Amino acid sequence: MNRELEKITPLEQDFAKWYTDVVKNGNLIAYGPTKGSIIFKPNSYGIWELIQKNLNNIFISKGIKNVYLPLLIPKSLFELEKEHIVGFNPELATVLMVGERSLQEPLVIRPTSEVLFADLFKKSINSHNDLPLIYNQWANVVRWEKTTNPFLRSREFLWQEGHTCHSDAMEARKFTREMISTYAKFLKNYLAIPTIIGKKTPKEKFAGACSTYTIEAMMKDGKALQAGTSHYLAQNFSKPYKITFKNKNNEQEFVYQTSWGVSTRLLGAIIMTHGDNRGIIIPPYVAPIQIDILELFAKKSEKVSNISKQIYQEINKKFRVNLDNSDRNPGFKASNSEIQGVPLRIEIGPRDAENNEVTFVRRDTLQKFQVKIIDVKKTIRKTLKDIHENLYKTALTRLQNNVAYVYSYDDFQKEIKKAKFVYAPFCCLDRAEEVIKEETGATARCIPIKLFKKPQQTHKCIYSDCQKETNRYVVFAKAY
Amino acid sequence: MNRELEKITPLEQDFAKWYTDVVKNGNLIAYGPTKGSIIFKPNSYGIWELIQKNLNNIFISKGIKNVYLPLLIPKSLFELEKEHIVGFNPELATVLMVGERSLQEPLVIRPTSEVLFADLFKKSINSHNDLPLIYNQWANVVRWEKTTNPFLRSREFLWQEGHTCHSDAMEARKFTREMISTYAKFLKNYLAIPTIIGKKTPKEKFAGACSTYTIEAMMKDGKALQAGTSHYLAQNFSKPYKITFKNKNNEQEFVYQTSWGVSTRLLGAIIMTHGDNRGIIIPPYVAPIQIDILELFAKKSEKVSNISKQIYQEINKKFRVNLDNSDRNPGFKASNSEIQGVPLRIEIGPRDAENNEVTFVRRDTLQKFQVKIIDVKKTIRKTLKDIHENLYKTALTRLQNNVAYVYSYDDFQKEIKKAKFVYAPFCCLDRAEEVIKEETGATARCIPIKLFKKPQQTHKCIYSDCQKETNRYVVFAKAY
Repeated sequence: MNRELEKITPLEQDFAKWYTDVVKNGNLIAYGPTKGSIIFKPNSYGIWELIQKNLNNIFISKGIKNVYLPLLIPKSLFELEKEHIVGFNPELATVLMVGERSLQEPLVIRPTSEVLFADLFKKSINSHNDLPLIYNQWANVVRWEKTTNPFLRSREFLWQEGHTCHSDAMEARKFTREMISTYAKFLKNYLAIPTIIGKKTPKEKFAGACSTYTIEAMMKDGKALQAGTSHYLAQNFSKPYKITFKNKNNEQEFVYQTSWGVSTRLLGAIIMTHGDNRGIIIPPYVAPIQIDILELFAKKSEKVSNISKQIYQEINKKFRVNLDNSDRNPGFKASNSEIQGVPLRIEIGPRDAENNEVTFVRRDTLQKFQVKIIDVKKTIRKTLKDIHENLYKTALTRLQNNVAYVYSYDDFQKEIKKAKFVYAPFCCLDRAEEVIKEETGATARCIPIKLFKKPQQTHKCIYSDCQKETNRYVVFAKAY
Repeated sequence: MNRELEKITPLEQDFAKWYTDVVKNGNLIAYGPTKGSIIFKPNSYGIWELIQKNLNNIFISKGIKNVYLPLLIPKSLFELEKEHIVGFNPELATVLMVGERSLQEPLVIRPTSEVLFADLFKKSINSHNDLPLIYNQWANVVRWEKTTNPFLRSREFLWQEGHTCHSDAMEARKFTREMISTYAKFLKNYLAIPTIIGKKTPKEKFAGACSTYTIEAMMKDGKALQAGTSHYLAQNFSKPYKITFKNKNNEQEFVYQTSWGVSTRLLGAIIMTHGDNRGIIIPPYVAPIQIDILELFAKKSEKVSNISKQIYQEINKKFRVNLDNSDRNPGFKASNSEIQGVPLRIEIGPRDAENNEVTFVRRDTLQKFQVKIIDVKKTIRKTLKDIHENLYKTALTRLQNNVAYVYSYDDFQKEIKKAKFVYAPFCCLDRAEEVIKEETGATARCIPIKLFKKPQQTHKCIYSDCQKETNRYVVFAKAY
């Protein structure tokens, strides 16, 4: 496509504008016809497909089975769990008409599928032999958000939602934690994103859950992004939806449940964790195109296009490769590859060809180096691995360097202004969180399961009205 | 799960009831909470995932790129193409409210995405260098059908829809035909289903298309099932939606378009092409479980469970395998495998174990034979191939044996009662088709691109009011 390469606003200058520019120019999306709706173009949908494929393989290895449930939920079914309906009601898109006829019962477009799974589980489960029952679904969901932002907050998004039933609470709680660890590992190994694992405060948990675990990632502007969640639902749904099983003593009991999900938000996390002033940088293991082969000045040298084709054919089966043999100028080709975030490009010009070598250019470090043609294949594998590891290490260092521990509300207010993840002794919840949010813009991200540095003593709760001694730390940050 | 294996109504006795029984007992679906809505359980969703994966690989080899467009379409955008909106309007589910607020503009849930792709193409295409542009989307769609039937006609279904733009009509027409051939080949090679390729009559074509190609499969009751379609849209959408490009003479021109799709209807086609009185038979290349290993009387012989485990581990990486080492009785295990349509089962009992062999049982022929343990792996590959080929050959023979050529309306009426695909000389369309449908229940399935036997001479059109000589044949049949 004859796309013009537009200028990207520097991220230091205006992070929000930088993000929008990267999304627009990276060939990632087009805007849809309704406000805030987006079209996933091949360069972003391809990332999601690779996330799906790799995460799905992990699910399969855990014996998780995929199913598909209806898009539309009768509103009356949705209303059985009170906290759930109160939490979601303002965001529910509701179908009232079909053709020219009104429906007898309003149908809501799923914002999540707990209540449908509840209905399925009720019909599927008889005895403890049927448990645990572990299902997952890849689907689109709709939540009518007031403000929208591509990938981060859109009215329709794509996700996977896992739903499980267990015969005892301990097992369900353990599974909830297992899934949040699975997500953290996946983000590390495939997206090169480090995260902090923790529990949500009651105020921030999922509407209907008993407790919610989260992984929180730090974006380049220091803000937090909730990248995945895993909920322990206890019997909150099994009681109103009557999901029972016969236990080993032949008594009817309500099942214990979990649910867990990650979504296309992860694409926003990738951009804001790794991106730079040239655009998105896609981590190699989820890059739709891992390698751009650029023919340079091929008209001047037949050898250039021969070598390009030879290399393309040699590596095409093992890697996701694109060959740019157009006659556009070298500068355009390089910029075009960079702005689309292709992790590695191989440039082949007349001089390279004469020396039987090619030039590797890493998207992450912009480092260039020559590689003998005979070594190309093995060097690719190593370089992609290096890029992944460097992206992860860089993000981890940034996270570690931007964590602050505070022991007073004064320090808290100072640190939170510097765009940091602030660890604070904090025992108050709900109203205290409201006040802190109003005064500083920060929210309680989680009660971390591990602390970077173990505090030596108890400290006073930083909330001014409290000041009780506590050894519970809460991570606060401004967040997406 | 402690499922009871229920009786399936014989297909000779009541085909519709047989179908419902097979669907229900094959662990394929559960019914959802709204009328006619279904839940795809792992045994049916797994088939769809394999259809997706294999068809997607074919798409990738053709350079087709996947994208994802919004679920909701502003009604005003939908209304620009007149024939399209008239065709779909009665089936459109419309969102009028969000939370407690009314929307300013009604949003329809996509029944298909021509108009959204039109909007995207309009923004993406500038010159002939951008063409052809070939996109595909895997998505859910909603069409509010009056009567529903699992997989065959449901209010929500899953599909892929391809959408393309071309700079000239010839190229677009050629691509339309290429995609229908691709589908026919896919059904043959993966689903073991033979089809007849043809063009729809104007009455039966897609609302908004210039012409529609179809593949028609014959179900076991002789009825036709439209299994895939490919539409040449000409400039029907590009004109109202203003999708233009600069041609080589630097003039603005409207693009020429195609669209094409297959859906979860294919699951219904699989059931009604291959199923028998024991239930569904899943063709091996799309079977979520290709092989059931059944341990029989393992308690009596340790060797049995050792061999089962050894074989499972040996073949688990290459095939999709399930090991049933429960202590249920052999009869239940075999029936359970059969009713779920697993193409091959390997039974291992104490006597087999003593002889260092196992028993293979084919789901299609129910044929049993012993295989030496050392030969298991290579025999599996061959047997799965044989099952696929046998399923295809059986279906093709049935199709060929149930085609009739008629040259008078009297014969037409006789043959169509015998549940046949009837080829008839026919030059009349529209009103004549209405009359025939009223009198016989049959519809014009297609104008086939090839005839089984080439007619030697022209014949009179079978429509009583016409009787002109014609050499155009139309295939009529009752249809799903």
